[in-house]
Amino acid sequence: MRLATIRTATGNRAVRVDDAGAVETGDADVRALLERPDWAAHAAAAAGPSHEVAGLDYAPLVPSPEKIICVGLNYRDHVLEMGNELPEYPTLFGKYAPSLVGAHDDIVLPAVSDKVDWEAELTVVIGSPVRHASREQAADAIAGYTVLNDVSVRDYQRRTGQFLQGKTFEHSTPIGPWLVTPDELPGGGPESGWAISTVLDGETVQSSTTAELVFGAVDLVVYLSEILTLNPGDVIATGTPGGVGHARKPPRYLSDGAVLVTSVAGLGELRNTCRKEKR
Amino acid sequence: MRLATIRTATGNRAVRVDDAGAVETGDADVRALLERPDWAAHAAAAAGPSHEVAGLDYAPLVPSPEKIICVGLNYRDHVLEMGNELPEYPTLFGKYAPSLVGAHDDIVLPAVSDKVDWEAELTVVIGSPVRHASREQAADAIAGYTVLNDVSVRDYQRRTGQFLQGKTFEHSTPIGPWLVTPDELPGGGPESGWAISTVLDGETVQSSTTAELVFGAVDLVVYLSEILTLNPGDVIATGTPGGVGHARKPPRYLSDGAVLVTSVAGLGELRNTCRKEKR
Repeated sequence: MRLATIRTATGNRAVRVDDAGAVETGDADVRALLERPDWAAHAAAAAGPSHEVAGLDYAPLVPSPEKIICVGLNYRDHVLEMGNELPEYPTLFGKYAPSLVGAHDDIVLPAVSDKVDWEAELTVVIGSPVRHASREQAADAIAGYTVLNDVSVRDYQRRTGQFLQGKTFEHSTPIGPWLVTPDELPGGGPESGWAISTVLDGETVQSSTTAELVFGAVDLVVYLSEILTLNPGDVIATGTPGGVGHARKPPRYLSDGAVLVTSVAGLGELRNTCRKEKR
Repeated sequence: MRLATIRTATGNRAVRVDDAGAVETGDADVRALLERPDWAAHAAAAAGPSHEVAGLDYAPLVPSPEKIICVGLNYRDHVLEMGNELPEYPTLFGKYAPSLVGAHDDIVLPAVSDKVDWEAELTVVIGSPVRHASREQAADAIAGYTVLNDVSVRDYQRRTGQFLQGKTFEHSTPIGPWLVTPDELPGGGPESGWAISTVLDGETVQSSTTAELVFGAVDLVVYLSEILTLNPGDVIATGTPGGVGHARKPPRYLSDGAVLVTSVAGLGELRNTCRKEKR
């Protein structure tokens, strides 16, 4: 099952996206849908107003999550190529809801920086409250997976030791287009190796597989749930592989008009145009 | 004016707290109240059910903020005593809503750590949306001030370079009891020097004044609003002065049954008992 949040003339709506069309579930967005304990059965049975898939206007998959949790330094190939040791613990930082944009929205390049970079990420969406989870409970709490690009303002990220301020610029972070439930995906989860890539103006700049994740989706839910309760609609961006712009020689950054395509095999793609903020 | 979120038999309520009693405003909590463009007039005119102040059960002042933004290394005396230079930019990190507790609730010491520490913080609450703010606009966007203790799990905080995981344990962070509007506070704002302290089991362990802030409340709103929109109910914890436990020789941490009193002159106090999580 694929679930999305779309914009309509009368506001956001959660939809189930089938080949035949996108059917409204009666919920305001995917978070509201996932807050129903019976969300899977409810969405599967939904028979509300239907929309043509080709014309959908995607909102951020979860427009207002309680938490957006990001993971750094989590691809084996990237960690080792940078000459670092594999980490014992996940590196975690935050991001706030106003940074999110939809799957086809413009990414805003802030006026205050010309060092904006890309980071394709497999992303977990939580479907039920979970705390002190076993691995089995953690797997059960995952509603599904989506795609996110953790677009990063590198000079702000490096202004201090804490990444947050470079990671949460307004309208910087596309997420979507859909949440795909695990039953629609290859067995074995992300550890089985799903291709992940970023294509910038037609050139592939990141290309790896999720088999390279140091901490997998279930590992992360177990670890985070030791710290606090994860709730329906929470978003966990699992980190990015090698190939980001600021590690290139010379460094390469996003510019006005650039088209960024971010994809994970089986999950779909984000296609966003970068627009320099006008002040 | 003092505003709080209290628990009642039928759920949370926003109240205006006067000497005569706490009067319901008709809103579910302080965030819902502040989302009214006319919140100040609405709260001042409120005449709903009234409660005795002595018996109030305080919820977290803002139970579900869109953002909890924390500032590190922001007291001049503390930065200099540690041998560091004054920072050029604020150090910013996040925290999530499930970490919050009310002014008199228990603080949960997680089973997984025995290195839990205190950090008294003057805290700003936003009252209107603000982006790319001038200093005057930033001052106008501040609904008022409150008290927070950024209780920190030091071993988790230091597991990686990013502080987040040590800062967002479930039920770790008291905030309240009230938001106090600027008109009720000494002129000149926090820069005029409000006494701030932590008292642990009757012993004063932190004692400073907000005149030592490197980045003041208005500075922080200006800086953050360059990055993204601040919205009503957003919480900005402005950092802590010297005297934390992990910098002591030997280090000192919170233990089961300890009573932590956190106060800022003119804003009131938090009084919380620490309870070790049972697993």
